[in-house]
Amino acid sequence: MDATVSYLDQLIAGGLLIPTGVDGLYGRSGVFEDVIVRFEGLVTAEGTQDAPEVIRFPPAMTRRQLETSGYMKSFPQLAGTVHSFCGGDHDHMSLLQALSKGEDWTAGQQATEIALTPAACYPIYPMVAAQGPLPPDGRLFDVQSYCFRHEPSPDPARMQLFRMREYVRLGTAAQVTAFREMWVERARQMITALELPFDVVPANDPFFGRAGKMMKVNQREQGLKLEMVIPVANPQPTACLSFNYHQDHFAHTWGVRLADGGPAHTACVGFGLERIALALFRHHGFDPADWPAGVRRTLWG
Amino acid sequence: MDATVSYLDQLIAGGLLIPTGVDGLYGRSGVFEDVIVRFEGLVTAEGTQDAPEVIRFPPAMTRRQLETSGYMKSFPQLAGTVHSFCGGDHDHMSLLQALSKGEDWTAGQQATEIALTPAACYPIYPMVAAQGPLPPDGRLFDVQSYCFRHEPSPDPARMQLFRMREYVRLGTAAQVTAFREMWVERARQMITALELPFDVVPANDPFFGRAGKMMKVNQREQGLKLEMVIPVANPQPTACLSFNYHQDHFAHTWGVRLADGGPAHTACVGFGLERIALALFRHHGFDPADWPAGVRRTLWG
Repeated sequence: MDATVSYLDQLIAGGLLIPTGVDGLYGRSGVFEDVIVRFEGLVTAEGTQDAPEVIRFPPAMTRRQLETSGYMKSFPQLAGTVHSFCGGDHDHMSLLQALSKGEDWTAGQQATEIALTPAACYPIYPMVAAQGPLPPDGRLFDVQSYCFRHEPSPDPARMQLFRMREYVRLGTAAQVTAFREMWVERARQMITALELPFDVVPANDPFFGRAGKMMKVNQREQGLKLEMVIPVANPQPTACLSFNYHQDHFAHTWGVRLADGGPAHTACVGFGLERIALALFRHHGFDPADWPAGVRRTLWG
Repeated sequence: MDATVSYLDQLIAGGLLIPTGVDGLYGRSGVFEDVIVRFEGLVTAEGTQDAPEVIRFPPAMTRRQLETSGYMKSFPQLAGTVHSFCGGDHDHMSLLQALSKGEDWTAGQQATEIALTPAACYPIYPMVAAQGPLPPDGRLFDVQSYCFRHEPSPDPARMQLFRMREYVRLGTAAQVTAFREMWVERARQMITALELPFDVVPANDPFFGRAGKMMKVNQREQGLKLEMVIPVANPQPTACLSFNYHQDHFAHTWGVRLADGGPAHTACVGFGLERIALALFRHHGFDPADWPAGVRRTLWG
C-alpha cells in the first residue's frame, strides 16, 4: 500500500493528476490526456479494418436499463444512481438551512431516471435489441465513455471515474468467440509494441456478498473473462484490458436476436484508458518526450 | 413544441442521435462525434496562441465542492448528486426484492462524496485556490467535460448530459474583462465562418424559486453573462456559447488570490458542443459531406 500511495503522490507532484480531496477523483493534465488520445488512436487503427459502427454515449444510462441489466444483483456496491432536488421553495429553504449548519441535506434528493454507466458497452445491448434482429454477419460497435464505480481508493489505477474504450461484437457463438480470440492476439501485439510487461489471466470480478462467491467461481471455471494485467501501482499487476464472453446472457436480458430468431451471443474487448496511460508513465517515465523510440513511434507515428 | 419534437425525430431517424427512453439522454453517431471533434479542433486553434494550461476533469466534482460553490442555492433543481448502495447482504436482499416487485428501491441509496459537474469550469476554481496566489499575468485554462443538468426535455438542444468546452481566465478585473471581450469577437468570427446565423444577447439563467427572480434581474442588469444564440430546434434561438464575467465571486467562494493578495476576478467562455453540432446539422443538413465548402474548410481544413 505504501508503494501505491507513493506512486499517486509522484503523479500529483509531477502534475499528471490533480487531486480533488476525494480518492479516485482526479483532474488530468494535458500531457496525460495526450497519451490517452494517442492510445485511442492506436486502438482505432487496429480496429478500423473491421468497420465498426461508432457510437458514443454520455457517461450515463437510464436507471431502468441499469435495473434490467442485473448489475444491482452482482455489483450493487459499485453502481451510482443520480439524484436531484425535486421540491419547492419551502423544501429549498430547508435544504439551504441544513447546508449552512453542516448537516446532511442529501436525504431529500430523489432518484432521477438516470444512472452512471458501469461499463462502456452497457447502453449498446438494449439499443441493438430495440433495432431488431441482427444481420447474418452480426454487428460490431466501437464505444467509449467515462464509467463510474464507487470504490474510493488511494490506488491511482482504481479511479471512481475513468474511461473505457470497447469493441463490442454481437452474433453467433462462433462469431463472437473468434472476435475475442482475435483481440487477445491483437492486444498482445499492441502492448508489446508499447514495451510494457503483461500477462493474460482469468479475471477476478468483485461480485457482491455471499451469493457473489459462487458467481466468481463460475466466471473463472467457464473462462468467460480474461484480463491483460500490467504492473502499475501495486506489487500485484493491474487489469488494464479485459476480454469478455457473455455467452447469450445479454440476449436473454435484453432480447438481442440473431437473424434466425435465436438468442445472440456477445463479447467485448475493453481498454482501461487511464490504467494504460498510468502503466506507460510508470514504465517509461513522466515525460513522453523521453519514452523509448519504438513506443513514441507506435503512439505518435 | 411541435417543431422541437419534429427536429428530434429527424435526428433520430437520420441516425445522428440514438434514443434511450429518457428525454435528454441520447447516444451520438460517429458522424455527430466527428463534428464535435472538428469543432473542438477549431476552438483549440483559436485559443492555442494564448498558451492555456490544458486540464481535463471527469464529469464529476466532489460533493463538498458543489456545496461550497453555491450551486445548490441558485440551481438546486438542476444539480445531480451520485448515490450508492452501502449496505450488507441483508440490505441487498431487500433491494433485490423491491426491484423484482417493481417497487422503489432507491430510498436506501446513500449520497457519495461525488456530484455531477454542472459546468466544465467548476472544478478549476478550488484547484487554483489550493495552488496559491496567481502570477502577475494571472492564469488561463482550457477545460472540457460532460456536464449534467436535470431538465428532461424533448428539445434535442436541452440534453441532461452534454459537453461543454471552456476557456477560463483568472486575474485582475482588467485582465478577465479583456479576455471576455476578445472571445466575444473571436466567437463572432468563428460562427460567421461556420455560416450560422447568430445574435449576442444578455443571458436568462433559470435561477430557482422566488429569491431567484432577483438574481436573474441582477445578472441581466450588470451584464455579467452574454450568450451567443443560434436557431436550433425552437422558434426562439438557443444559447450555444456563453461569455461570463463572475467579478470576484469565485475569489470569495474559494479564496482565489492575486499576486498582491487581493481577490482575483474570473471570466470564462463556454462552448455548448452538442448545441453547436445540432445547429450545424440544422442549417447545413445531416450529411457533412454536403455542407458548404467554406464550412467544410473551416472544420476539416
